[in-house]
Amino acid sequence: MDKNFNYSNLKLGIIGGGQLGRIMSHKAKKMGFHVTILDPTFNCPAAQVSDKHILGGFYDKEKLEQLVQETDVTTFELEHVDTSILKELFDHGHIIHPSPYIIELIQNKYEQKKLLDKKGVPVPAYKDVKKEEDLAAFGFPVIQKAKMGGYDGKGVQMLKSEADVKNALQTESFIEELVDIDKELAVIVARNIEGQIKCYPVVEMLFDERVNICDIVMAPAKISKETADKSREISIEAIKALDGVGIFAVELFLTKKGEILVNEIAPRPHNSGHYTVEACATSQFEQIIRAVTNLPLGSTKLISPAVMINLLGEEGYEGEPFIEGIHDALEIPELSFHFYGKTFTKPYRKMGHVTILDDDIDQALQKAMQAKDILKIKGSKKI
Amino acid sequence: MDKNFNYSNLKLGIIGGGQLGRIMSHKAKKMGFHVTILDPTFNCPAAQVSDKHILGGFYDKEKLEQLVQETDVTTFELEHVDTSILKELFDHGHIIHPSPYIIELIQNKYEQKKLLDKKGVPVPAYKDVKKEEDLAAFGFPVIQKAKMGGYDGKGVQMLKSEADVKNALQTESFIEELVDIDKELAVIVARNIEGQIKCYPVVEMLFDERVNICDIVMAPAKISKETADKSREISIEAIKALDGVGIFAVELFLTKKGEILVNEIAPRPHNSGHYTVEACATSQFEQIIRAVTNLPLGSTKLISPAVMINLLGEEGYEGEPFIEGIHDALEIPELSFHFYGKTFTKPYRKMGHVTILDDDIDQALQKAMQAKDILKIKGSKKI
Repeated sequence: MDKNFNYSNLKLGIIGGGQLGRIMSHKAKKMGFHVTILDPTFNCPAAQVSDKHILGGFYDKEKLEQLVQETDVTTFELEHVDTSILKELFDHGHIIHPSPYIIELIQNKYEQKKLLDKKGVPVPAYKDVKKEEDLAAFGFPVIQKAKMGGYDGKGVQMLKSEADVKNALQTESFIEELVDIDKELAVIVARNIEGQIKCYPVVEMLFDERVNICDIVMAPAKISKETADKSREISIEAIKALDGVGIFAVELFLTKKGEILVNEIAPRPHNSGHYTVEACATSQFEQIIRAVTNLPLGSTKLISPAVMINLLGEEGYEGEPFIEGIHDALEIPELSFHFYGKTFTKPYRKMGHVTILDDDIDQALQKAMQAKDILKIKGSKKI
Repeated sequence: MDKNFNYSNLKLGIIGGGQLGRIMSHKAKKMGFHVTILDPTFNCPAAQVSDKHILGGFYDKEKLEQLVQETDVTTFELEHVDTSILKELFDHGHIIHPSPYIIELIQNKYEQKKLLDKKGVPVPAYKDVKKEEDLAAFGFPVIQKAKMGGYDGKGVQMLKSEADVKNALQTESFIEELVDIDKELAVIVARNIEGQIKCYPVVEMLFDERVNICDIVMAPAKISKETADKSREISIEAIKALDGVGIFAVELFLTKKGEILVNEIAPRPHNSGHYTVEACATSQFEQIIRAVTNLPLGSTKLISPAVMINLLGEEGYEGEPFIEGIHDALEIPELSFHFYGKTFTKPYRKMGHVTILDDDIDQALQKAMQAKDILKIKGSKKI
């Protein structure tokens, strides 16, 4: 689409209707665009706030084609999709960003790592697992990762010793050296059709150890300016290596020795960038819309320090969600409450999040911990 | 609803589906609520982002009753509605905020003024017009206002001299002294069910003289701290006088002598509070949702100075809108673009707005003027 395209008519298609698609749709609607969601779940989070819902799965070629045919621009909230039909449509001139070729590359964590490595982007040592003996190539403990299909801690495990080899993932995989991690960082990078690149502040991710799901995000990260600059530089290099259009979340390891290594890249808005809705001049969700619709990227300026916490379904419950403590939590100043409209909770399911702004990041963290203590997402059924 | 109500299930009804209802729905959906819109226009701005649309007018008692019966809480984006059925439902215990009795009072600008006056809130001198001679009671020039139905400069006119009396509004009206205005100010005040009150910063409104529609809003207003404090104090007094629950926009005159007078009150989110979406910890649109659903009010802290400009339909065009200059305008840093998804433009129709953040309010204003020069909402048909 050129600059004189009638933007008041723009039809955007989003593959995936979870919380990321929901907030993307919010922002696309803010700008006046028409939004169609492709998702297999009736009344999914994004469909509730969009113009049209195509009920279909992410491997349903017919429905994927329908989405692309009916809209001006197609983008993604998730990378686990059938790329074959999308590549065909892309080759025929349909606007799909990031390109399905990039999505396909990123789907395979091993190929992703190989590309970054080849382009000089620092990554942990890694090795393809072709036979069982390869698992022991770096000694133990070692990290084993499935090449395909992993997310939210799934498809990743530590082999502590030789004895764990019998429990290894029985799928195409690779091993990665166990990095001595000081902090896990993340940087959101946007790149638009014209090649303009904008980079968000470096944030720090804290994890729920029980399930390895990102739990708390601090923006900005408590790191030196030098580390922050270097992290942003590496993240931009990684995105240049991919040559994609959209929003990319670069997850980084800061090692105890002060090295910065790229862990992996998500080719879409990311949990580590939720804070941008309240804390940055342009959120990651608006930024992707700008990027894929040939508009200039917005300012990534941090307007206020912020801490984001995920609201995960409580252990021991499932069914219709019940938000415990909302009244008390909303007493906390500068707290913004997000709930995704999912009609079913289960343990550790991402049900919502809150973002707390404070000029003092430590104060923000303290308020966030308080909110985390108060807010519990329980369910109609004890399990 | 009590504090242990299941908020994950909350059904909110909004009377009115324009841009105010649209952003209210955005914020209610952010918090996970189910939203139903009542509006007579198919595919109206708010219906595009809500769960359900009841197609009906604001004086359609059956549809108003349906909305209230189907939802847990009903609120308003506009005050021009039939209150008789709403009062009945309210009296039977349905939750409607602000109460239809307050809406009814505010609908009549003369009664509104009388109440404020009685409660000691400073207002311009005013007088009921019972017969034509009353129009001359304050001499000329004088302002004549229709008691009912006015908005956006409609229902208000200046009678410059005796000769204008023949052009006077032929409806129930009152006159108001012509105030020697230095600035027009506005303050958004929120009050929740528990009686908690929060007040936003004082803003300055600039008007498009041609049609008397608010054009530009500067937050904060360039006034002394003393004037700001006094403005907030008077605005809070005005809302206490009304005894309402929700969001109220208090429009004020700052006279050349330094007096502060209440012009009028809107019992709903207001154009002068659009800036709160980007610039405050809690937007007016989230605040009304919190207020009417028995949640604590959020912080009204100004995170950054901001200037908002309305995007009005260009003179000389109507029909399907075309946004001219969007690409160039979005190059302006810290600019947030809102377009309401209206499918038909006409001269001076509110089609969208932009908000610009800048630590320096004069810089923000300069960028806003630049955006105003670049962005034109034209239509498919020249008129």
